Amino acid sequence: MLKRFVSFKAAGKLKLADLNKLTINAKYAVRGKIPIRADELKEQLNDKNNGLPFKEIIYANIGNPQQLDQAPLTWYRQVLSVLQNPKLLNAQIDYPKDVIDRAKTLLENVGSVGAYSHSQGNPHVRKSVADFITRRDGFPSNPSDIFLTGGASAAVSYLLQVLSSSNTSGFLIPIPQYPLYTASIALNDAVPIGYYLNEENNWSTDPTQIRELINENNEKGIQIKALVVINPGNPTGSILSYDNIVEIIDIAAEHGIAIIADEVYQENVFKGEFVSVKKVLSKLNELDPEKYGNVQLASLHSTSKGVSGECGQRGGYMELVGFSKEVRDIIFKLASINLCSVVSGQTLVELMINPPAPGSPSYDLYKSETSKINKDLQTRADLLYNSFIEMEDITCNKPMGAMYLFPKLNFTPNSYSKLFKSSEQMDSTIDETYCIELLESTGICCIPGSGFGQVPDTYHLRTTFLPPGSEWINKWSKFHNDFVKKYKN
Amino acid sequence: MLKRFVSFKAAGKLKLADLNKLTINAKYAVRGKIPIRADELKEQLNDKNNGLPFKEIIYANIGNPQQLDQAPLTWYRQVLSVLQNPKLLNAQIDYPKDVIDRAKTLLENVGSVGAYSHSQGNPHVRKSVADFITRRDGFPSNPSDIFLTGGASAAVSYLLQVLSSSNTSGFLIPIPQYPLYTASIALNDAVPIGYYLNEENNWSTDPTQIRELINENNEKGIQIKALVVINPGNPTGSILSYDNIVEIIDIAAEHGIAIIADEVYQENVFKGEFVSVKKVLSKLNELDPEKYGNVQLASLHSTSKGVSGECGQRGGYMELVGFSKEVRDIIFKLASINLCSVVSGQTLVELMINPPAPGSPSYDLYKSETSKINKDLQTRADLLYNSFIEMEDITCNKPMGAMYLFPKLNFTPNSYSKLFKSSEQMDSTIDETYCIELLESTGICCIPGSGFGQVPDTYHLRTTFLPPGSEWINKWSKFHNDFVKKYKN
Repeated sequence: MLKRFVSFKAAGKLKLADLNKLTINAKYAVRGKIPIRADELKEQLNDKNNGLPFKEIIYANIGNPQQLDQAPLTWYRQVLSVLQNPKLLNAQIDYPKDVIDRAKTLLENVGSVGAYSHSQGNPHVRKSVADFITRRDGFPSNPSDIFLTGGASAAVSYLLQVLSSSNTSGFLIPIPQYPLYTASIALNDAVPIGYYLNEENNWSTDPTQIRELINENNEKGIQIKALVVINPGNPTGSILSYDNIVEIIDIAAEHGIAIIADEVYQENVFKGEFVSVKKVLSKLNELDPEKYGNVQLASLHSTSKGVSGECGQRGGYMELVGFSKEVRDIIFKLASINLCSVVSGQTLVELMINPPAPGSPSYDLYKSETSKINKDLQTRADLLYNSFIEMEDITCNKPMGAMYLFPKLNFTPNSYSKLFKSSEQMDSTIDETYCIELLESTGICCIPGSGFGQVPDTYHLRTTFLPPGSEWINKWSKFHNDFVKKYKN
Repeated sequence: MLKRFVSFKAAGKLKLADLNKLTINAKYAVRGKIPIRADELKEQLNDKNNGLPFKEIIYANIGNPQQLDQAPLTWYRQVLSVLQNPKLLNAQIDYPKDVIDRAKTLLENVGSVGAYSHSQGNPHVRKSVADFITRRDGFPSNPSDIFLTGGASAAVSYLLQVLSSSNTSGFLIPIPQYPLYTASIALNDAVPIGYYLNEENNWSTDPTQIRELINENNEKGIQIKALVVINPGNPTGSILSYDNIVEIIDIAAEHGIAIIADEVYQENVFKGEFVSVKKVLSKLNELDPEKYGNVQLASLHSTSKGVSGECGQRGGYMELVGFSKEVRDIIFKLASINLCSVVSGQTLVELMINPPAPGSPSYDLYKSETSKINKDLQTRADLLYNSFIEMEDITCNKPMGAMYLFPKLNFTPNSYSKLFKSSEQMDSTIDETYCIELLESTGICCIPGSGFGQVPDTYHLRTTFLPPGSEWINKWSKFHNDFVKKYKN
């Protein structure tokens, strides 16, 4: 054992002032204050004498279906098990023929899931994604435009990083938005420019408002780089109309603003129809290439949502249309620095967008499992929605898609003066107070609307409708009654 | 079909000048110019009449064992196949009992690999990692200090992002280095401060030089945030001595500089002994807590290297020691914005650091597979090393660990004037010219030393020794002879 007498005076540790301010200031509500408190309470529940008025935490803060009761699709997991252990091909195992065939095709074309892939993602999987987009939209898609990414989050991170050239780079984002966008904008020292979705009209977009924002911000010297649309909407649960999408593309074409189309919930549709921005752009481009030929679109998809719900597998893709070679090369370089997205996730993307065909051995089971998931989601959405609209001083739009409801708490300073006073004392917003009390009373964890953005002096919550059963909803209703009793004048 | 007559003038596309300069300027040689040319040639090989003087590309540019002939460990893949498809537990399948048991334990503690985990990584896996570190070093490790990350690259990215507070933040990095560091430093607008490893003394570190650099840079107003050590060395293949590590810790303690210890090759040791920075720090701290109590250390490990070689699975961890709560909270927030690292990769970390115990049913096979991989690596390292030292005007340090050799091309302007002239005409560095000609003549893809950093007017190459057989090495020797003939005066 060494004995040392070195003479120096020890220096202190790194302090907050030594750190990157952008990382200090970025906020991410989905895993922020309320969920952190939920984790503490969960820890406390392990203690027999915890004194808590509930037995479990209901995580309604995050769209994480398999954390709750959603089972993974058999089709996915059978193929993935063979990719992880190709020796299963020689085992006595009763996998359907199409599972075996697909696994063999992927093994031939991808090789070991333990090898780094091409930085942009495996070429075979990219070709399959392009074929899927072509089928979905009726317009061609090119494998060289596809980047396989670790969920959609990695794609957003690359795009925002490349497009933020200075602190005068602006990004138009819907309000309410998914906080990944404000967080990524903050990390890149860019300017978030919120355009309000119209709650009274099913959270539709208002092109007049967006044009005004562009003019205002251009005058201030802000160069707007991209406009984000989230369709189906997170946290709103709404679906954009065809006309809404046309209006957005017009704006992008006129102002040279790229479109980031976050379409990860494209399979989660209960009401209305999902149309991809790519499809509408392709139609417009066919009609008038001079006007629409320069439009730059990045559209994102993921294995985390839809009927897949494979959040932990980190599969996703981004299709880049209309961007210059320079932009694509730099995105490729960023992907290269990260080496590659997880290869099993890449293969899962292929399984998602190229599922068993009707008549194939896996088809019936696949169909029945996905139908059940879809039906469950719709039932749960309706159940929660119907409860919300019964609650005093809550209004809520009827869910059309995605996995969330974003109900409005109609609490005014006049009618809820005690609530406003108590929130002020606790240095808490009205919606935060509601969420904290909900959590502490029932174990239900949802997120205040302030984490997503809302019209000033309005208060919302975002909650998934994923937790099973009606018991938690009944608890919520009861809590709400008590809350109103406690605080309403 | 809609017909539209909207009147606006289409704007142009985003140009290079509109993009983030930091992303434009960052360089990443491992997947840069030479590998991109290799991919083009690979494409060309598909053409029957390609006219190329070789039949395949030998990818010696990247440590990607399973892209070559290394098979994954049976232990890993059996367990992972069950985690992907837990229904295999009920199938007639001849997996050993410890595989089944481990899979059950992981399923109980992790749940579905399709669910998001805790942002910092699954608690059960973190506990297992902490136990491994405790066993390895003989000093305690705490699960709350462990962050599970997507390979070690994600950890580096978080650390550099948090610690870069302005363009006067400096990072001490070894030269030669792994280009992830210069790339991440460039992306964060920080200052890379290269300290030269001593090639003549097995690429050891020189504390005197490091202290001088610290003083020089402090005088220039640069605040040095962290010192990176890569041990075993990439690209050098060397191993740091115990004394070298003590000296680095002294410097860190005296100057309040954090240590980033990239220890992903800790299992790849042929000669000498790997000692973790954590172990040495723990010893010093025990001896003199006043001096060493403030030292901040981030040590990184990965499933991509070692005998695992599971690059595509993106598993890794980072242990944070001595950092303040503020720093850890911000790193946690960054991890949260990315939701979580891939969960199957997290479980693979657990399988790596907690392998079958002697006497368990999987042990013998595990032992024979890992021994074979280790032996193969050593044999290949020796084979390539022995060839290099036979080549005219090449010198090379004897490999001690990792997966690379970093031979020196002893080409001087006097003796190789034609080479210097021709490189100047092609706007290429000497080592780049060598790599391009090697690639175009033999299909062997390795990386010029300039991508890693080297003493000015010296020229190196980085090559893995992973490709199997000796045929490629013979081709290389022949190429080298021809190259010398062509260019030597």
